[in-house]
Parts: sequence; structure tokens; C-alpha cells
Amino acid sequence: VSGFGLERLSLNQATVKHLGLSSAVELCVRHEIPAIGLWRDRVAEAGLSAAASLVRQAGLHVSSLCRGGFFTSADPEGLAAARADNVAAVREAAELGADALVLVCGGLAPGSRDLGLARRMVADAIGELAPVAQELGVRLGIEALHPMFCADRCVIASLGEAVDLALLFPAEAVGVVVDTYHVWWDARLAVELARAAGRIVSYQVCDWVLPLPADVLLGRGHLGDGVIDFGPISAAVAAAGYDGYVEVEIFNHDVWAAPPDHTAVTVRERFPLVTGVMTGRGSGRG
Amino acid sequence: VSGFGLERLSLNQATVKHLGLSSAVELCVRHEIPAIGLWRDRVAEAGLSAAASLVRQAGLHVSSLCRGGFFTSADPEGLAAARADNVAAVREAAELGADALVLVCGGLAPGSRDLGLARRMVADAIGELAPVAQELGVRLGIEALHPMFCADRCVIASLGEAVDLALLFPAEAVGVVVDTYHVWWDARLAVELARAAGRIVSYQVCDWVLPLPADVLLGRGHLGDGVIDFGPISAAVAAAGYDGYVEVEIFNHDVWAAPPDHTAVTVRERFPLVTGVMTGRGSGRG
Repeated sequence: VSGFGLERLSLNQATVKHLGLSSAVELCVRHEIPAIGLWRDRVAEAGLSAAASLVRQAGLHVSSLCRGGFFTSADPEGLAAARADNVAAVREAAELGADALVLVCGGLAPGSRDLGLARRMVADAIGELAPVAQELGVRLGIEALHPMFCADRCVIASLGEAVDLALLFPAEAVGVVVDTYHVWWDARLAVELARAAGRIVSYQVCDWVLPLPADVLLGRGHLGDGVIDFGPISAAVAAAGYDGYVEVEIFNHDVWAAPPDHTAVTVRERFPLVTGVMTGRGSGRG
Repeated sequence: VSGFGLERLSLNQATVKHLGLSSAVELCVRHEIPAIGLWRDRVAEAGLSAAASLVRQAGLHVSSLCRGGFFTSADPEGLAAARADNVAAVREAAELGADALVLVCGGLAPGSRDLGLARRMVADAIGELAPVAQELGVRLGIEALHPMFCADRCVIASLGEAVDLALLFPAEAVGVVVDTYHVWWDARLAVELARAAGRIVSYQVCDWVLPLPADVLLGRGHLGDGVIDFGPISAAVAAAGYDGYVEVEIFNHDVWAAPPDHTAVTVRERFPLVTGVMTGRGSGRG
């Protein structure tokens, strides 16, 4: 048992996509969820300073800010724009006191089929951003996305790659984000989590639900509604030294359409599945 | 340049899904395509002996038979049925003189979330099948499917896993199938292809086309219509000692709806992209 009890639960704002920041904060308080993962668009909507004080006054911990990245571009102007946006994201993460700035690194550069080029762009961009993050005390979290997003969203398509990349930089500035949805299938997961020791800056959970929907971005489900066996993954994440929050982040039309209080109740009810100590629902356990 | 010229082209029957065996064979002959990848349902429809003589008389080489596998099951009856079906598939491959029997290994066992269990079932089943294959002179090809199919079709979700598994068995009985659609994203692809030296028994190609369709099984395209850079992959496949046929296998509603002669022309026209020596179409090259 990894020790991720409800005191470690964080609600990623994207799970209640239709709520503005203050409503999402109130929801967490109402359901005794001690932390929140914020999204930059919702923070901007509320205003950065106002958002920071709102969250602080509610007594919520900010487990992550989503997100920086999208580093790949076909031209210098695009690269410069990405750089400026990422510096801004680091500043926002610092002001919000977020445990990590989540990086979704970007797909192939437009008009290119060169995976190596895209991966070098990502490494270069993180190399430029890391000193900024270090100076402001922000940890960047490189998130490996599922390989089905390799072409258009993130050329870092396995946890091993994210770890390789993070290890190029100081641990206090750059780590990795582990999201069960993206990495659950990987036969190398256990060994890569061990290699990530001291580098895991965010742990996000949701389930892999079949069949995949038309928009594969939205194929996520509440814990227990799919096929992921969370217990061993959480144990390996804990063994790698991670003792931060566990963010429930679900992109799913049905979840978004549900009343947010209902979603929050389900998130809390299912959370024990993170450590595998509860009998789950769906096709598997029992 | 890997040396995969048109004399190495094979048309996988699934690319012209709506044709029966004899029509597919005639199509290959008409378009000077020297080899064909066969599917068991179409072979059964024609009758095994009739199919074998039809293909032989046409002078076509059989580059693969698709497919065996689906080894994972929740109960002993299911496992026994899979075993019997796979033995039959090996016999069919032998009679057809196929270079390889392609194995799609199966997803999680029904009602289970245990990836390790499913992977052990696959290893055990291949262990039982390998002596049969060896005796009949058939090479089994373990195909790594894209990780998006891990839950429901194939728990062998990366080339590295397929190679690890193949290396447990004699090289003359068990190898791996490399399909660009399934493995193009993998940062470890080059090293795993090198490890696969002498073990590649089939090389299948098609492109990764965005956006993914509602049914992700059908997101494949003609070479050049997507984002895959085939040249370096083909060079690594050749460097690993593979000098067999290159099968064009495309699952795509539009391709299936096209006149088969049109499809065959496009397959031939685009085939030079396999070695990267032709300027391609689509979003990338040029």
C-alpha cells in the first residue's frame, strides 16, 4: 500500500471542465478535497493574483499547473512564441505555488516527419526553460503522452523518454509527470518508474475505458470504470520517492456533463482504487 | 537505401478487403505485384488446397498468412480453443508456403486487469506452438501492436517486448513482425530493430494518418498520406538482415471503397517511399 490516502487527493480542474476557478475551488472545499490542479485558461480568466489568493484563502494546495510545452514549431517565430509563453507559464506556476508545471511537449513540427528533429526541439526548449524554472523555484514536469498522440501532441511517447530527458537537467528544476492513462500499457513501466526516483513531480490518474471514443482525447474514465490496475503503479510511484498529491484528471464528455458535486463524490469514492485496497467496478476486479 | 524495390512488393489481402482470393490474386498478377499476404478467412472461403494451388499457379509468393494469436482467455476451454485454432493456422501456413504466420497475441483476458498474466499466457501459448511450427517449417511472427490496442487486441505493445519474447525460442521457429503503423513512434525503435537481427519474419507498411478515425483500427493510409518517415525504418529493417517482401497492409474505409485496380496502382506508385527515395505527398516531404 502506497500511502496515498484521501489527504493526498487532488482534483484536476479539467475533470470539472465547465466550472470556473472559484466554483472549482468551492467544490474542492465542499468535498474536503485538499488540493487542486489548475489550468492556465481558467487562471487567466480569474486573473493571476486573484486566482492565487482565492486558492490560498480556501486553504487548497496547488498540485500542478497545466500546462506549458508545445515546443515544436516549423519556424523561429513559432519557437520564440512558445518560449515566451512557457516563461509566462513558469511565472504563473511560481505565483500560484504549484508543485509542478506540466509540460505537454508538442508533436511533429508542422510539415515535418522528422521525429528526431521534434525531439531535439523539445530538449532544447526545456534546456532554455530550466534555468528560469530553477530561479523561480518551479519544477517542470515532462509528461509522456500515450503513443497515439505522438504525431500531433507529444513526441515524448513513453515514460522512459521523459526520464531520459529529465535526467539531463537538475532534479530541482526538471522532473516527469506520471499519468496512468498514458503509460499503463508499457512493459517497461516498472523499470522506468524506478529510474525516475526523485524525479516524479506529478502523479495523475484516470482509467482507460473501452471502446475508445471518436475523439481519443476523451477516452478517460473514473477509476474502476476501465482496465487499469492502479495498485502496482501507485506502489512503484511511491517507491520512487513520490509523496505528493494524486490528481484525478478525467477528460470525458459524460463526466463533464455530470453535476460537478456528483463527480466530486465519485472521485472521492473511487480514490481508494489508487492504492488497490478497494474492490473496484467495471470489467475487472471482484 | 535498403534495396526494397518493386520486386519486393507484396499486397496484403486486407488492403483490398472486398475481394475474394482469386480476384486478389488476379489483381496482383495484373499489376505485376510478385507476392501476397493472405488472410485465413479468405483462404477458408476458397478452400485451403484450392487456395494453395491458385496462388502457386499464378506464380505469387505468399509473404505471410494473417493470422494466429488471440492467446489470452479467462478459462481453460478458451485457451484450448485458441491452441487448436493456432495449430490449424500453422498447418495452413505450411500448406500455403507462407514466409510467416502473423500472430496478434490478444488483449487482457476477459474480466482481468492483469497485464502480467496476459503476457504470461502469450508466452506460454507461443511456447506450445513453436515446436509445431518448427516441425512444419513455419516461422511464427510476433507482431507488436500499437499501445492503443493493448487492452483489447494485443498486450505485446512495443517491438522490444516482441523481440524479448521471440528470443526465448529458436530463430527458425519464432520471429517478429515489424509494422510501421504500430511502431513508428517508438524512441527505442532503432535499437530494438538492431536487437531483432535475424528475427524479422515480416515487414508490413502503411502510414499513420491524422486525425484518427472513430474506429482507430482504420486510421491507416497509403504511404505518403501520413506522417511516417519510412526510409530510416526500412534501412534499419534491412540492416537487421531482413531481405523478404514488404507487405502493404492498409485498413481504411476509403481505400476499401476505392476500385481495387486504383488501389493497386497507388500501392505501386507510392512503394518507393518505403526506401525514402521518392518525394512524398501529404503534410511532410518536399
